[in-house]
Amino acid sequence: MQKPSIPKGTRDFSPVEMSRRQYIFDTVKSVFRTYGFSPLETPAMENLSTLLGKYGDEGDKLLFKILNSGDYSNGLTADEMRSASKICEKGLRYDLTVPFARYVVQHQNEISFPFKRFQIQPVWRADRPQKGRYREFYQCDVDVIGSRSLLNEFELVQIVDGVFSKLGIRVVLKMNNRKILYGIAETIGHADKMTDITVAIDKLEKIGIENVKAELSERGLGADAISELQPILELKGSNVEKLDTLSAIIGGSEVGAKGIEEMRTVFGYIERSGITLPVELDLSLARGLNYYTGAIFEVKACDYAIGSICGGGRYDNLTGIFGLPDMSGVGISFGADRIYDVMTGLNLFPEDVDCSTRVLFANLGYEEEAVSLKLLSEVRRAGIAAEIYPESGKMKKQMEYADRRAIPYVVIIGSRELETQCATVKNMKSGEQYGVRFGEIVDVLK
Amino acid sequence: MQKPSIPKGTRDFSPVEMSRRQYIFDTVKSVFRTYGFSPLETPAMENLSTLLGKYGDEGDKLLFKILNSGDYSNGLTADEMRSASKICEKGLRYDLTVPFARYVVQHQNEISFPFKRFQIQPVWRADRPQKGRYREFYQCDVDVIGSRSLLNEFELVQIVDGVFSKLGIRVVLKMNNRKILYGIAETIGHADKMTDITVAIDKLEKIGIENVKAELSERGLGADAISELQPILELKGSNVEKLDTLSAIIGGSEVGAKGIEEMRTVFGYIERSGITLPVELDLSLARGLNYYTGAIFEVKACDYAIGSICGGGRYDNLTGIFGLPDMSGVGISFGADRIYDVMTGLNLFPEDVDCSTRVLFANLGYEEEAVSLKLLSEVRRAGIAAEIYPESGKMKKQMEYADRRAIPYVVIIGSRELETQCATVKNMKSGEQYGVRFGEIVDVLK
Repeated sequence: MQKPSIPKGTRDFSPVEMSRRQYIFDTVKSVFRTYGFSPLETPAMENLSTLLGKYGDEGDKLLFKILNSGDYSNGLTADEMRSASKICEKGLRYDLTVPFARYVVQHQNEISFPFKRFQIQPVWRADRPQKGRYREFYQCDVDVIGSRSLLNEFELVQIVDGVFSKLGIRVVLKMNNRKILYGIAETIGHADKMTDITVAIDKLEKIGIENVKAELSERGLGADAISELQPILELKGSNVEKLDTLSAIIGGSEVGAKGIEEMRTVFGYIERSGITLPVELDLSLARGLNYYTGAIFEVKACDYAIGSICGGGRYDNLTGIFGLPDMSGVGISFGADRIYDVMTGLNLFPEDVDCSTRVLFANLGYEEEAVSLKLLSEVRRAGIAAEIYPESGKMKKQMEYADRRAIPYVVIIGSRELETQCATVKNMKSGEQYGVRFGEIVDVLK
Repeated sequence: MQKPSIPKGTRDFSPVEMSRRQYIFDTVKSVFRTYGFSPLETPAMENLSTLLGKYGDEGDKLLFKILNSGDYSNGLTADEMRSASKICEKGLRYDLTVPFARYVVQHQNEISFPFKRFQIQPVWRADRPQKGRYREFYQCDVDVIGSRSLLNEFELVQIVDGVFSKLGIRVVLKMNNRKILYGIAETIGHADKMTDITVAIDKLEKIGIENVKAELSERGLGADAISELQPILELKGSNVEKLDTLSAIIGGSEVGAKGIEEMRTVFGYIERSGITLPVELDLSLARGLNYYTGAIFEVKACDYAIGSICGGGRYDNLTGIFGLPDMSGVGISFGADRIYDVMTGLNLFPEDVDCSTRVLFANLGYEEEAVSLKLLSEVRRAGIAAEIYPESGKMKKQMEYADRRAIPYVVIIGSRELETQCATVKNMKSGEQYGVRFGEIVDVLK
C-alpha cells in the first residue's frame, strides 16, 4: 500500500508548528483587539461570480474551482464542460479582501461604519508550488472601511509597531502614497504613464539610477521628463525634508500636493505619538495591487532577508465592484508564513511555546495510579497542563515519552512514594530529582 | 447590479457571532490543553484517493471535488470528463478523522505515541442545506491514538465534564460499548445481525418496546431470540446494576463479557474521581459510524432539545485503511454549531463576550484629538481595548456608533475638559456621566 500524501503545495501543521503559529496569531489578534478591531470570518467557497475578474487574467487562472455536486455534467458536450463555467459555480477564496468587500456590500445595513474588522483565514491559489510559496496559506488582514480620516493610517502604523515589538522582530516601515506617484507622473507630463514610471522607480535599489533612467527611456519617456525626475530619484534626508523637496517639484499637481499633505499629517501623528518604530518615506515603494489610491505600507525585517512581511494601503473604491461606491478604506495584511520563518531564523519564539504539557505523571501500577489520578486532578484544577502515562509499564518508555514530548517535569509515584506520601519530581532538563509531599505538589509545580 | 451573495449552505460570521464562537473554541481548547492534548491542522484539500471509499457510497457523493488547474481537460471526451476522476484529483475534507488517520500514518516516525491531538477546523459536505445543517461547518475533535488503556476513555469523560461545566451547560453523558452490542447479538444466536438489532434498539425511546419487537421480527429474528432480548430492552437501575443484569444474560459471550468489563473499569474511574457529571449506560446508543469497536459516547443537553452535542468512541483500526494496523484510539467530537445554539437559546454567553471595544474616545476637534490620542495610548497600554472616533464631528453620530457597537464607555474631551484637565466619562448603559482627571482615566476604566 502506498504511503498516503497530501496535495502539492499544501502542508500539515504538527503540534510544535501549530503552537508557534498560534503564538503569532494570538499576538496579532491581541493587538488588533486593543485597537478596537473585531473578528470576521467568511466561507472558504465563494460564488465564482464574486471572484472572477477581480484579480486580473492571471489571478482568474489561479482560482481553485469546485465541481458542482449532483448531475452537473448531464447533457453537456466536452467543449462546454471544458469551459468550466457550466460545471463549476463556486471557487475557493483567493484572498480575504474581495470576500471582505462582498461582505460589506451584502451586510451594509447591519454594519456600523466605520467598520473595523480583522480576519485570519486560509486562502488558496493554484500557483506553481516552490520554496516559501504554498497553495494554501493564511492571511491575516486588518482593515477599517467607511472613513477617510488619516487617523486610520496612523492607527495601522501603531498596530505594526505593537505587533512587531511584541514578537521581538526589529522592523522598518516604508510608506509611500499613490497620489504622490501620480503627481510625479503628472508633473513630468506623463500622467498616463504612472504605472511605467512606478515600475521603473521600484527597481531603483536593485538596478541603480542609470539603469532606471534607461528603462524609463525604453518605456517612452523623453530626456526632458527623465531629467525632471532626477531630483526625485535622488531624494535624501528626513521624511519632512523629502516632502519639502517633493513639494517644490510636484506641488503644482493638485493630486500630488494632496498626497504630500496626507503624508505630512500621518508623519505628524507618528512624531507626536513618540513611537520608536522607524518609518521611512520611500518613493520606490509601489506595491502591485491597483486598487490602492492613497497611502501604501510595507514592512521589512531588519535582521533577516526575506522580503516584505506586512503590507497594505488605502483604497477608495473596493466595494464599487459590488455596487457600493464611495466607501474608502485602509488596511494591512500580515504575512504569517514569513513572520514564522523570521522568528524561527532569529530564534525569537519564547522557550515555553513548544511545551504543551508541563507535567507527566508516571504510571507504575494500580494503587499508584489511583493516587496519581487524584493528584493529577488537583494539578489540572490549578490550570497546569498535565497528563498521566496511560499504561503502567516500563519506566524507560515513559521517560522517553516525556523527553520526546519535551515535558519539563515528571512526577513519579511508586510503592516507596506511596509509603512516604512523598512523590519524586524529576526535572527533565537538569535531571535533578527531589521529593515533594503529596499535599505540596500543586504549589511546587506552579 | 445584483447584490452579492454566498453559496447556499455557507455562512458569514459577523463580529458578534465570531466572538461567541471564539468563546466556545477557547473554552474547549483550554480544557484540551489542560489534559495534555496538542493542536494539529491538516490542509483543506486532500487527495481524492485519501477521501474516497472512507464514508460509504453516500459519503463519496457528498465530497466537494476540486477541478484540476491548468489544461486539465485537454483531449478528454465528455464521458471521460463526466466521470470526474480525470479532471479532479483533490477534494475538500469531509471530516477531521480521515485526515487525522492519514496524518498519523504519514508521520508515524515523527510522532511520540500515545499521540494526543485536538483539531478544530471546518469540513465541507455537499449535503442538501436545511435548518441547522450547513455545507461548511467546524468540527472540534480530540483523540488519543496508540493506547488501549481505558484511562483514555475516562479522560474523555473528564473533558466532557470540564468543557460543559465551564460553558455552563447542564448535560448528561450516555455511554455504551460496541462489544456489549455484539455480545447481545451473539447470545441470542444472531451475531450476524448485530447492526439490525442495534438499529431496532436505537428506536426504543421513540417508538416503544412493542414496535421495536415488531421491527426485530421483520428483520428476521425469531420469537425465541426476541424474548431473550426482552430483559435487555427493559434494563433498569444504576449503571452497576445494569451491568450485573447484562452479565447474567450475555456473560457467556467472550466479547460481551469483555465489553462489560471495560464499562466496569470506566465507571469505576468515574466514581472514584468524584465527578458530578451524570453518566448513564444506555444500550440504545448505537452511533452510526462503523469503525467504533469499544466504548461509545454521546452528550445531550438537559435543558434544550437539539439532539446530541458531542459524541465519539473507541476505534481499533482507523489507520488500517492507510496501511498501519493495530493502532487503537479513542476520541470525541464537539458540535460547535449546536453548542452555539444551546448557549444562545439558554442565554449562557457571558455578557462581555459581545463587547469587543471597552472605550470610545469621542473626537471633537484638532486640539482635543491630540490630548485624546495621548490618553488613548495609555488606556491601550493597560490592555484595555479602546478606539477613537476617526472623524471629528457631530456628537450624536459618535454616540450612535458607540451604541450600535455596544461600547460600554465613552470618554469625551471637549474644550471645557481641556481647560479643567478632567475628561467626561459616560456609562452608555446607565447614561451616567462623571468627571475624571486625565491622570486617573486608566485606573477608572480598568
